[in-house]
Amino acid sequence: MRDLLERVRTGTTSADEALEVLSELPYRDLGFARVDLHRELRQGAPEAVLADGKTPEQVAAIFLALLEGGAGSVLATRADDAAREAVRKVAPDAEDDEQARCIWVARSVPEPRGVVVVVSAGTSDGPVVREVQIRARLLGTDVVVHEDVGVAGVHRLATALPDLERADCVVVVAGMDGALASLVGGLVRSPVIGVPTSVGYGSAHGGTTALNAMLASCAAGLAVVGIDDGLGAGTIAARIARGRE
Amino acid sequence: MRDLLERVRTGTTSADEALEVLSELPYRDLGFARVDLHRELRQGAPEAVLADGKTPEQVAAIFLALLEGGAGSVLATRADDAAREAVRKVAPDAEDDEQARCIWVARSVPEPRGVVVVVSAGTSDGPVVREVQIRARLLGTDVVVHEDVGVAGVHRLATALPDLERADCVVVVAGMDGALASLVGGLVRSPVIGVPTSVGYGSAHGGTTALNAMLASCAAGLAVVGIDDGLGAGTIAARIARGRE
Amino acid sequence: MRDLLERVRTGTTSADEALEVLSELPYRDLGFARVDLHRELRQGAPEAVLADGKTPEQVAAIFLALLEGGAGSVLATRADDAAREAVRKVAPDAEDDEQARCIWVARSVPEPRGVVVVVSAGTSDGPVVREVQIRARLLGTDVVVHEDVGVAGVHRLATALPDLERADCVVVVAGMDGALASLVGGLVRSPVIGVPTSVGYGSAHGGTTALNAMLASCAAGLAVVGIDDGLGAGTIAARIARGRE
Amino acid sequence: MRDLLERVRTGTTSADEALEVLSELPYRDLGFARVDLHRELRQGAPEAVLADGKTPEQVAAIFLALLEGGAGSVLATRADDAAREAVRKVAPDAEDDEQARCIWVARSVPEPRGVVVVVSAGTSDGPVVREVQIRARLLGTDVVVHEDVGVAGVHRLATALPDLERADCVVVVAGMDGALASLVGGLVRSPVIGVPTSVGYGSAHGGTTALNAMLASCAAGLAVVGIDDGLGAGTIAARIARGRE
Amino acid sequence: MRDLLERVRTGTTSADEALEVLSELPYRDLGFARVDLHRELRQGAPEAVLADGKTPEQVAAIFLALLEGGAGSVLATRADDAAREAVRKVAPDAEDDEQARCIWVARSVPEPRGVVVVVSAGTSDGPVVREVQIRARLLGTDVVVHEDVGVAGVHRLATALPDLERADCVVVVAGMDGALASLVGGLVRSPVIGVPTSVGYGSAHGGTTALNAMLASCAAGLAVVGIDDGLGAGTIAARIARGRE
Amino acid sequence: MRDLLERVRTGTTSADEALEVLSELPYRDLGFARVDLHRELRQGAPEAVLADGKTPEQVAAIFLALLEGGAGSVLATRADDAAREAVRKVAPDAEDDEQARCIWVARSVPEPRGVVVVVSAGTSDGPVVREVQIRARLLGTDVVVHEDVGVAGVHRLATALPDLERADCVVVVAGMDGALASLVGGLVRSPVIGVPTSVGYGSAHGGTTALNAMLASCAAGLAVVGIDDGLGAGTIAARIARGRE
Amino acid sequence: MRDLLERVRTGTTSADEALEVLSELPYRDLGFARVDLHRELRQGAPEAVLADGKTPEQVAAIFLALLEGGAGSVLATRADDAAREAVRKVAPDAEDDEQARCIWVARSVPEPRGVVVVVSAGTSDGPVVREVQIRARLLGTDVVVHEDVGVAGVHRLATALPDLERADCVVVVAGMDGALASLVGGLVRSPVIGVPTSVGYGSAHGGTTALNAMLASCAAGLAVVGIDDGLGAGTIAARIARGRE
Amino acid sequence: MRDLLERVRTGTTSADEALEVLSELPYRDLGFARVDLHRELRQGAPEAVLADGKTPEQVAAIFLALLEGGAGSVLATRADDAAREAVRKVAPDAEDDEQARCIWVARSVPEPRGVVVVVSAGTSDGPVVREVQIRARLLGTDVVVHEDVGVAGVHRLATALPDLERADCVVVVAGMDGALASLVGGLVRSPVIGVPTSVGYGSAHGGTTALNAMLASCAAGLAVVGIDDGLGAGTIAARIARGRE
Repeated sequence: MRDLLERVRTGTTSADEALEVLSELPYRDLGFARVDLHRELRQGAPEAVLADGKTPEQVAAIFLALLEGGAGSVLATRADDAAREAVRKVAPDAEDDEQARCIWVARSVPEPRGVVVVVSAGTSDGPVVREVQIRARLLGTDVVVHEDVGVAGVHRLATALPDLERADCVVVVAGMDGALASLVGGLVRSPVIGVPTSVGYGSAHGGTTALNAMLASCAAGLAVVGIDDGLGAGTIAARIARGRE
Repeated sequence: MRDLLERVRTGTTSADEALEVLSELPYRDLGFARVDLHRELRQGAPEAVLADGKTPEQVAAIFLALLEGGAGSVLATRADDAAREAVRKVAPDAEDDEQARCIWVARSVPEPRGVVVVVSAGTSDGPVVREVQIRARLLGTDVVVHEDVGVAGVHRLATALPDLERADCVVVVAGMDGALASLVGGLVRSPVIGVPTSVGYGSAHGGTTALNAMLASCAAGLAVVGIDDGLGAGTIAARIARGRE
Repeated sequence: MRDLLERVRTGTTSADEALEVLSELPYRDLGFARVDLHRELRQGAPEAVLADGKTPEQVAAIFLALLEGGAGSVLATRADDAAREAVRKVAPDAEDDEQARCIWVARSVPEPRGVVVVVSAGTSDGPVVREVQIRARLLGTDVVVHEDVGVAGVHRLATALPDLERADCVVVVAGMDGALASLVGGLVRSPVIGVPTSVGYGSAHGGTTALNAMLASCAAGLAVVGIDDGLGAGTIAARIARGRE
Repeated sequence: MRDLLERVRTGTTSADEALEVLSELPYRDLGFARVDLHRELRQGAPEAVLADGKTPEQVAAIFLALLEGGAGSVLATRADDAAREAVRKVAPDAEDDEQARCIWVARSVPEPRGVVVVVSAGTSDGPVVREVQIRARLLGTDVVVHEDVGVAGVHRLATALPDLERADCVVVVAGMDGALASLVGGLVRSPVIGVPTSVGYGSAHGGTTALNAMLASCAAGLAVVGIDDGLGAGTIAARIARGRE
Repeated sequence: MRDLLERVRTGTTSADEALEVLSELPYRDLGFARVDLHRELRQGAPEAVLADGKTPEQVAAIFLALLEGGAGSVLATRADDAAREAVRKVAPDAEDDEQARCIWVARSVPEPRGVVVVVSAGTSDGPVVREVQIRARLLGTDVVVHEDVGVAGVHRLATALPDLERADCVVVVAGMDGALASLVGGLVRSPVIGVPTSVGYGSAHGGTTALNAMLASCAAGLAVVGIDDGLGAGTIAARIARGRE
Repeated sequence: MRDLLERVRTGTTSADEALEVLSELPYRDLGFARVDLHRELRQGAPEAVLADGKTPEQVAAIFLALLEGGAGSVLATRADDAAREAVRKVAPDAEDDEQARCIWVARSVPEPRGVVVVVSAGTSDGPVVREVQIRARLLGTDVVVHEDVGVAGVHRLATALPDLERADCVVVVAGMDGALASLVGGLVRSPVIGVPTSVGYGSAHGGTTALNAMLASCAAGLAVVGIDDGLGAGTIAARIARGRE
Repeated sequence: MRDLLERVRTGTTSADEALEVLSELPYRDLGFARVDLHRELRQGAPEAVLADGKTPEQVAAIFLALLEGGAGSVLATRADDAAREAVRKVAPDAEDDEQARCIWVARSVPEPRGVVVVVSAGTSDGPVVREVQIRARLLGTDVVVHEDVGVAGVHRLATALPDLERADCVVVVAGMDGALASLVGGLVRSPVIGVPTSVGYGSAHGGTTALNAMLASCAAGLAVVGIDDGLGAGTIAARIARGRE
Repeated sequence: MRDLLERVRTGTTSADEALEVLSELPYRDLGFARVDLHRELRQGAPEAVLADGKTPEQVAAIFLALLEGGAGSVLATRADDAAREAVRKVAPDAEDDEQARCIWVARSVPEPRGVVVVVSAGTSDGPVVREVQIRARLLGTDVVVHEDVGVAGVHRLATALPDLERADCVVVVAGMDGALASLVGGLVRSPVIGVPTSVGYGSAHGGTTALNAMLASCAAGLAVVGIDDGLGAGTIAARIARGRE
């Protein structure tokens, strides 16, 4: 918005054009959705589509609008079979991952810069790991994954140590007690992003236990995204790894 | 890890070998899982497989890897029909319990030592009772079970008294108000492990009420595992009952 | 109670005497309290006095009644300055610990058997560590303590490893994320008792975060007592360490 | 209200008088309070004054208004030193109980009918026990109290059994795990009212644990009032014990 | 238990017989259940069967055992189609209510005494109303029902006023804000039992909102049972209405 | 009620008639429901039917009773396919909205007065937006809707600004973090009603997060209805927009 | 912002001036605070000062900045003695209310329009009632107050009925069960704003119970502000009562 | 640890030395604390001292041990007057901030690299802002602060826009609804760290509301630390801003 006002001030854009720009240009109105075509310019990452709570037709229409708006890549998350099927119809070049319930098109992904290392506590964290990985790659970073290295058998973390040391950002995906985030947060030099998952039953309380444990951790270089929010973790991790642009 | 360093120090193992051992040997990497083949050596109990959140194929592959890694016994919990079916294909000698959703293979179980007595408050606690029982037996202890002896009809506990007195460890399985744990905890001499269950509706809050009641109990020899965590209770009870090894 | 009925059956005790025993003998009625003089016989551990919520006079009176009832040792916990002062008046040989708010008399403690190893995550867990230690020693076991070995600097745990290996029972005292319990629970062979503490602020939620994390841990030989409940942990740890009596 | 309309219909009261009655008569307006002088007529029990959150002057003024309105007895609960002092100034014949923070005047108490038996789990429940006792007596019933008979030493309940059997209503006062309510609820024939107390620390969660445990109890003749609500328990217990009037 | 000891003391029963009685007689052991045949004698109400969490076969077996044990009536609650079908096979004279998921046999119900009046806030509370009604009738009391008289249209309560005035016990069934319990609790003379229901969505929080509102009500003659616990409410209401027996 | 008493006083209505009116006239008793035919007169808005928790037959019968009682319009919410089908049978002129699960008949809607502007954070909030819109229109107000203008792309709110400025009442529908309510609440002059929705996963906690955020907002002209409660928001918004009647 | 852009477009304001306006004019930077001098213009109500969490010096400085910025009135809430003392030094014409912890200056209050009627459940709700009243009057509306008319003695509401009928907006202030809001919400025609208060103990849960009850109420014309948020209620009530400006 | 093993392998370090290193060198044992002298080497940031829960003497001793261990800087947080006084005695060159309860010594701070921009919602967030600022500067980064720019007066954010655009990392400090984090998260390109604060009352729930709102935000480049955890935010922000080292 400040750019716009500066262009108004410097005469590159007239005030009339500015109002027009603000009110009409930067999104596309589908009635049920206002697709933010401006986000990639503004923040370096295209809007992602949360399929959950939308009809397959709505998901596909938003997906298509983003592609037509020139997005370098588009990603829909939490997309069930029907939603992914609907997207494939409007974007035949889409790739998808059934377990992670993701579908995406990558038409123009930035040259990779920096390395994100993702470690997970257990096999059941797999779908969230995948979501982190897909998002971070689409935003232009290399991603290395080490799964199932939880603290119940901490020696399994050993092979991951060289990668953890060279990471520009580490993402820890863990449910249950979330203890892996504290352990890794006490070992590495780079920023650590924790992703609590809803894995586990009973006292895991759907991910709340892992979330609170990560937040209460005394490992000081650790910040956390919402439960199962692989998209959020992939986004911030890629931004950290790519550095100032 | 200390063993390893000691072997390095005493020359039984070279430093090069030690690194190798740490990084490569003690688990098997299946890609989606790093199966901890070292746990039975380290802790006297093989890794158990939590089937919930894994595909049947993943469960079966981990089960098989543990067997091939030489585990004396393998147990998968929270395994639905598909998961148990998949396991049976890779381990035709597997036994299972449909109600408890457990499947296991017992190829070399330790000679039983000590007695674990399991009491439950009601019939609906049955599946968790079964999980405690299976796990504790696989770890090498005798298990005696008295079901449905809750405090609403406390005289039903009478027949269990002789067993409670000779127990090396008592496990109390109870949902709703969890009051049986407090009562038993005030009667017996041996350590008591409480297992809150998600049995009950409304104010039972999915087991949280029983859990908090057990934790707040003023019966001082009582410790608690997570809601419905029969595996955890069976493990610690067997360790207590077997004593120092 | 069963002993009593058996003595009735075998003629050592008449039915009249039995009723008398049950109704009058095993406690002392102070009006505001019925002091359980029978607990040491029944469970091997004397009743402890929770000073919190009682007047100093009540604490002292109960303390005295237990001593006069022949208790081998008496312990009052959560006793503020006034309560400890009142106890010292009725029991001049009492020892106390200001930080842990405990006061106790040890007139006849059982010959120590077994070893309890207590590890804590941070310095602020000190008062709870002390409560575990005092209780477990009064019940007749050796106690070894390693403080401030939390996962944020996991190498500090190294010196504790030899003790952890020889322990008959390990107690882990930790607030915040409680991750130390999971880590230790994945390393040792002996039963592990976790004590969540109310140490930490904000997302530590007064110990609830540590509690839930310990309960949700996938370290299978771990059970947990209530928040800050050093007394409970000391009791069950001593019972485990002493083994069957 | 229906009485009023019936008197309108039968001509005992004119419609004009009725409106007057409804709008002006049955309470006294002190500006900050509308004292319900009609409650004793309507429900057989005078309005009680919750002192907490009111200034001492307000408490005393309401107390006085009730007395002047002809109440047979008046009770103020949760009254600190200043509030009780203020009440004594307007009602020199008031009795009070410092521990229970109650002050009351009994000018015309109904002839006692029925027996309420109050049992408590521990000494610290004393203030709530006292509040139940005072209220129930003011409403005209006999009250018998057995304190400190919690399940950790269940034999202490034995002396109370004869009273429990002859009770018209039993009130169980208990904090922590609230297990005493379930136990008593499984033994007696009469209705049982549970009063969870905020006694205990950590996992007692200020009485919520005891409350939920009592509500989730499978003892079917048990109903519960709010945490520490001795007034409510005393009121319903007296109504039950007195029977239809 | 005290009866037994008294018979021991007075010589009506020998100690040997007493032990036998306690350990063997008062329940029937089905393996997965210990059916409390003694409850009707002890508490005047037979054990009810909570079908939820049990297999249809288990429900039917317990039902049959109670009938064979001589119960005057048997009631199973939360019984789905399969459970009710299974019960009908062993008890062809069973009546059931599909909406309330109850099935029962009434072979010898006590002569009715007293009146329980049940009022509900809305139509959706119907199944719980039915459960209260069935249980209270089986225990021998008259039951009058007024449904859908919630505070949003408070004039609908008018027709119920005469019944509310003659009730020996009032039961208020309400979800959402539970306000009907407070209103009724401020009007009537008799004891009031509140039953919070899980009716409502969003901020109703599955009945917790109604529960807390009822507990926090300043209507002093009101006590509460667990969420949706029609059985509990019916039991205590019948006991109150029948009075001392 | 006061109207009635005044008519009694002024002689327009006799006392006998008044009692009759109160007890019999203003609702229709269907047994399972007492349909409040008086609400439209009393509050200017007819009773709405919450279909959730009622059988299709009950929904249709209540719907019909309201129509027969002369309601200007009737609306059933949370009505699944079966409920809507049942209503269509008794009211062939009913319109419905599948996504919003609403069905309604508008026979005599008040002349529109005032403007309600509804803005929503995302496409998934659509069903709740629709419920607000339908209800507010049936109560006689114009409704303008701007969907999907959440703070993640705040420029999309620009087109809505002219409408926000001319609104008599603004309704903000938002799940997840509910931040749109705070933003709008800081911009506009008119009263703002927030509707938190259950949209979002994990840390959205089924709408509780949005609810609390709206309540804690420091935008001072904002009040909130329950989670997903489009009906409530539509009702109060229409009342505000129409002004004093 | 749109006004500004329109002035840019119409030439009344140059783009350079616009940027200046946006970045520099509408607030005053005190370093620790950016005082929003524009709010009264934008929203018709000046910024209020929440004293809680600020030093007395900060409160006074912000207060003064608002006055110097030309505010018609300024109000500080949750101001303890020290904060009110500090304000009086910079604004000797300030009035205050100790119980409500409010202090304010009214230099130019709008001509009153519309009537807000405030009813409260009990005397202890007084301070919040006062905060509503002060705020609503400062924003230019008449305020009528009826205190202590809770549902436990519902006849006390009768005198308030004529005022409730003529209100343009009703505010209900209630703690504990919050039932008064539902009752009033079912009676009146005007919009109702509920203010849950933290009055009550135990199961009142610091106002959360009243809050949830109000949100779950089926009285459809009711919206709610945060716990104890008299300021918010006063603001929206005044806006509703004054109508479109 | 891997470094160590590599040095063992390459012969730079013997195995004996390695064990020594691991067990003895990297921390200093004060009995009540094991000060992690190795953390600055391992993670680039020295251990910080959480004063809360420690005695002043303990805080000072740990502070001194870190200084003597060669720390470039030492910071104690949540240090009350007594703790800060004690530190000043052992470190006369310490600076402190009373409002933020921080005390620190900066003997050798890294050359600043990168820019962290901190924005806060309100004045009361000041102490947490200060903690972020102090920590980030000690770790070697430039810090720019804009306070009190919350969404209730969003134009105040305008002056901060140029700084937000040049930031390498943005930290948003906000209590109440935490909405500022979502707004900023939707505007900037750099990673955003949210710090929920315990500012606000009632529905702010001590920071939990802000925390959940930030976690549920759909601004995808946002991660969060614990409530009031300025230290954690300062640490990760500095690591992000400095980039790979």
